Amino acid sequence: MTGSDTGGDPILFYFDFSSPFAYLAAHKINDVAKLYGREVDWRPTLLGAVFKMNGNKPLMDQPLKGAYARRDLDRCARMFGVPMQFPDSFPFLSVAAARAVWWLKSKDEALAQKVALALFNAAFQEKKAINSAEAVIEIAAANGVDPEELKAALNDPAVKEKLKTEVDASIEAGVCGAPYFIVDGEPFWGADRIDHIERWLSTGGW
Amino acid sequence: MTGSDTGGDPILFYFDFSSPFAYLAAHKINDVAKLYGREVDWRPTLLGAVFKMNGNKPLMDQPLKGAYARRDLDRCARMFGVPMQFPDSFPFLSVAAARAVWWLKSKDEALAQKVALALFNAAFQEKKAINSAEAVIEIAAANGVDPEELKAALNDPAVKEKLKTEVDASIEAGVCGAPYFIVDGEPFWGADRIDHIERWLSTGGW
Repeated sequence: MTGSDTGGDPILFYFDFSSPFAYLAAHKINDVAKLYGREVDWRPTLLGAVFKMNGNKPLMDQPLKGAYARRDLDRCARMFGVPMQFPDSFPFLSVAAARAVWWLKSKDEALAQKVALALFNAAFQEKKAINSAEAVIEIAAANGVDPEELKAALNDPAVKEKLKTEVDASIEAGVCGAPYFIVDGEPFWGADRIDHIERWLSTGGW
Repeated sequence: MTGSDTGGDPILFYFDFSSPFAYLAAHKINDVAKLYGREVDWRPTLLGAVFKMNGNKPLMDQPLKGAYARRDLDRCARMFGVPMQFPDSFPFLSVAAARAVWWLKSKDEALAQKVALALFNAAFQEKKAINSAEAVIEIAAANGVDPEELKAALNDPAVKEKLKTEVDASIEAGVCGAPYFIVDGEPFWGADRIDHIERWLSTGGW
């Protein structure tokens, strides 16, 4: 299948590394974008501030909803054909992972995406903790990133500031959960909206 | 298209009349079920208790999420091809509507569904208030229900008790939002899961 809409602005893909549905989406969105000649701009953010604004408890901690969400998640993973093991510790801190990816993006978007996917896979396939700088550096190094340079970057006030700026910008852009996508100005929230995005790209919207 | 799975237990369709996504689902689920030789059992409930358990504010009142949800809702309505006008007063009380439908179900499931759809349409197509017994009686009467009998039923302690029992039973069954479906024991939450239900029915699950 090829899209009727080829070329155009990148699809903005906002995510928190701690979101299992974002993990699923990370395995799908580039393939869908490619069908329509689109790139994807991977933009890690931190959702803690948004959850606080909305007064939400983490989904998995909510009575009834938590149990359902786990079941739905596993079923969606099987439907997507993406292997998944739920982390033992959840939710987890994703600040170091997000900083690392923003630093890598400033050098090489493809490498940033490769490392981001490796971080997601470590958390949601291999049940590895990715909450510490050490864990993030180890995973990045295994994907070709210089560990000393990354270690320095994670301590660089400019890199810390960059993430803060991007978190604020994501809130400004309306990002209310993860995964969150913006396609030609149109927002889509949820791994279950990737089908809608594909339809949007193929029809030019409705 | 015809399903590989024909016959079998009815699909349980739980909803609160105040849910706009349940309104959309109400226009879709019977058609999907029919493809697989299934009936649908429409089961109105009240979600106030569940929202309280989960500490959720109504979706539309949440910063960021509310604005997104309205946009997503309108886009889903257009995608489903279902006309929609958002009520001026929202969320609204749905106790009388739910009682009326449970009373009708005890007499005639088809009539109960016809009236339920008329109530949904009044609220989400015609912007009519359906929160009062009077409004519910008027809409039911226009669909062939004896208004005096319904008026008596809405005041009948047994009918009130029936709804309470069913709300408790829905929580017991795990219903955490609307629309919520149970297909052969498998739960699905959200109008956006009707596609998954269709796939579930056509494949026998995954």
